[in-house]
Amino acid sequence: MRHLLGIEGLRRSDIEALLDRAEAHLHGSPDASHVLRGKVVANLFFEDSTRTRTSFEMAAHALGAEVLNWTMAGSSVSKGETLLDTARNIEATGPVALIIRHRSSGAPHLVARHVRCAVVNAGDGTHEHPSQGLLDAFTLRRRWGKLDGRTVLIIGDVLHSRVARSNLHCLTALGAKVVLCGPPTLLPPGLEALGARVTSRLDDVLPEADAVMCLRVQSERQSESFFPSAREFSRLFGLNAARAERLKPEALVLHPGPMNRGVEIAPAVADGPHSVILDQVAHGVAVRRAVLEVVCR
Amino acid sequence: MRHLLGIEGLRRSDIEALLDRAEAHLHGSPDASHVLRGKVVANLFFEDSTRTRTSFEMAAHALGAEVLNWTMAGSSVSKGETLLDTARNIEATGPVALIIRHRSSGAPHLVARHVRCAVVNAGDGTHEHPSQGLLDAFTLRRRWGKLDGRTVLIIGDVLHSRVARSNLHCLTALGAKVVLCGPPTLLPPGLEALGARVTSRLDDVLPEADAVMCLRVQSERQSESFFPSAREFSRLFGLNAARAERLKPEALVLHPGPMNRGVEIAPAVADGPHSVILDQVAHGVAVRRAVLEVVCR
Amino acid sequence: MRHLLGIEGLRRSDIEALLDRAEAHLHGSPDASHVLRGKVVANLFFEDSTRTRTSFEMAAHALGAEVLNWTMAGSSVSKGETLLDTARNIEATGPVALIIRHRSSGAPHLVARHVRCAVVNAGDGTHEHPSQGLLDAFTLRRRWGKLDGRTVLIIGDVLHSRVARSNLHCLTALGAKVVLCGPPTLLPPGLEALGARVTSRLDDVLPEADAVMCLRVQSERQSESFFPSAREFSRLFGLNAARAERLKPEALVLHPGPMNRGVEIAPAVADGPHSVILDQVAHGVAVRRAVLEVVCR
Repeated sequence: MRHLLGIEGLRRSDIEALLDRAEAHLHGSPDASHVLRGKVVANLFFEDSTRTRTSFEMAAHALGAEVLNWTMAGSSVSKGETLLDTARNIEATGPVALIIRHRSSGAPHLVARHVRCAVVNAGDGTHEHPSQGLLDAFTLRRRWGKLDGRTVLIIGDVLHSRVARSNLHCLTALGAKVVLCGPPTLLPPGLEALGARVTSRLDDVLPEADAVMCLRVQSERQSESFFPSAREFSRLFGLNAARAERLKPEALVLHPGPMNRGVEIAPAVADGPHSVILDQVAHGVAVRRAVLEVVCR
Repeated sequence: MRHLLGIEGLRRSDIEALLDRAEAHLHGSPDASHVLRGKVVANLFFEDSTRTRTSFEMAAHALGAEVLNWTMAGSSVSKGETLLDTARNIEATGPVALIIRHRSSGAPHLVARHVRCAVVNAGDGTHEHPSQGLLDAFTLRRRWGKLDGRTVLIIGDVLHSRVARSNLHCLTALGAKVVLCGPPTLLPPGLEALGARVTSRLDDVLPEADAVMCLRVQSERQSESFFPSAREFSRLFGLNAARAERLKPEALVLHPGPMNRGVEIAPAVADGPHSVILDQVAHGVAVRRAVLEVVCR
Repeated sequence: MRHLLGIEGLRRSDIEALLDRAEAHLHGSPDASHVLRGKVVANLFFEDSTRTRTSFEMAAHALGAEVLNWTMAGSSVSKGETLLDTARNIEATGPVALIIRHRSSGAPHLVARHVRCAVVNAGDGTHEHPSQGLLDAFTLRRRWGKLDGRTVLIIGDVLHSRVARSNLHCLTALGAKVVLCGPPTLLPPGLEALGARVTSRLDDVLPEADAVMCLRVQSERQSESFFPSAREFSRLFGLNAARAERLKPEALVLHPGPMNRGVEIAPAVADGPHSVILDQVAHGVAVRRAVLEVVCR
């Protein structure tokens, strides 16, 4: 694997190899601390991020690499430079990989066609966020052993969610059933063709779920006419304590973060017994070590 | 010591052990360059800072650690994430210590109750800035051998100063007498009970001081009604050349930085023979090495 | 060489020694990866930059150093600290070199007079950008073997360009002829005395050039009365496809970046056969390794 641009199109064996390698990293892999010794991994973040940038940075350090952090603030993008010129310039300084987050779907793919180093998509517009899909699957697999036959319910703004899209591809490839649930205006057509069940009736599907993933309500969307208010969303689709009681006892609750406590997820649920939200963060570093190891090979 | 949240409550022996260790670092401690090899120290700065963040970063590097810099800009806080969620997420990625600066008094304490890694307070609201208190005491001790019986005069906005508060605790624990001086509106009640002498008569106390610490006038305070103008403050409480002439010949002048030259301290004094201001900065790195070494043990 | 503040005044032998050392780095110099092991190089960028900061950071890492990144955002400069106080404070924390970019001409020189560590000018106002001059000369020397008798045409806002100034000094010291071309309002007097030919007739000089360097049109200048509009500049001085056809077949095209595609340079030329623009970026890292190695010796 030369780049990681999306989960769509990956074979089940590719995904499982990455998750197996992540498992090794999670148990500590001291031999790995020299894999990227003397190399530099460059973070190119055209959008704000705490956890994804941090997670890749921790993963790179664990492999012995230095990290170059490039963000919009203080950069030449404010001087009108194009994405490709920025990326090719950073590449020309010698990093082994570019980790790219961009508001435009397809931005990392465009870069990947024009550079020789590895490119990892750290979230592109409403398209994919593949390392998030991998770490969510990894978190579920660690609890369940395997995903075959399990039902994962993803709730929220599916239309704009790159997390939902990567998870849909990743979870179905690993044998899970995915149910996508949200307001009708936020459920794009065509998802059934990808193997998902689509519904707006949250309370009908809650009891079937082996895991529930709450998508973040993005405040920047809430001014748009098709989007319910935060209060309305919370009432109709928020995972509150009453809804959590209707989950299977062993059901897992995931959230990609950052959470809007009290909107898509209630604090009691986020911090409650079902939650594996902080596991997701810790697993993210292990998964990203595996990703960097594979694409920089 | 698992965390360093404040000086208040530390025993004299705890403080002296840290200062002894800082002394070793100042003389070069090559064996220390592996203490945190392969570890990451995370800077979580919710407020602007040059010297404190830089100083912890240099200290961490000297111990062989990598540094993760997290600031408000470009982060998920702009997306409404809570302090605790941000801190727990960063912790979940695996750093050995969180260095936290926050505008709210008590923020590092709150975090410390919810994480397993070490927490160091790098300044919380108007409460404490313990590594600053330690480095100031260290700077004085290096000149004097010991602080017992010495008089340290702290001038300025005592009410809002976490530097004054940490110094009061640190210096009195080490046996020094502390005199706090400023406009009556900026001298909170209760300081005498902590062992300080409190006065607004600067010219009376200047000749007694073995050391004078000028607190920074924070421009953001100057719009508040109780605060004198910069010109008025400078005339009444600024350490100018005329006042410096009334100091003991061996008296030391300190400033935590960044300085407002011409307001709380005159350039001739800042750069003059009494000044140990740049020593403070250099000593800060040694003290913070000692702090990181101890809390990450 | 203790500092690198400008090219003006350097001897040809000094420049050639740096370029020879850069050549060694470009071919890989594994022995160099320990030159600055355990040391820290501090980037002090008072102005935005992608490539220069990144390039110094990559160079420092390649020599085994850690990098401290200091930028205006999130710093004490917003609190009114002076340049000298900021620089002396950073120096007191222990870096081996300060890499300084500042909007004021002469800022790095001022700092260099007040610190003991090495200072490298990474661009000061409209004065010099010496590492850029070196990397441009390096790029030409790698193609030509030597610069003696070659003609280099520099086009654009010469008046405000520190890149033009450093190149003029560097290229003439190495034996090349420099032609400076731009609107009459952007050609300051006195350049002939430095050995340059000065003209506003681009089409007359194009066929003579062995290399053409397009200076960036700085958008912040375009509101000023003496500056042509972007469209007008492009028509009169832009290196478009028609003009590129009038170049010698072997002529090289350079640009210091970031490019305004379609203004000072057409995309077809930037990405065309004459262009060595990405070579410049890669060479910049090798040149800056050589610079850091020499000033930190």
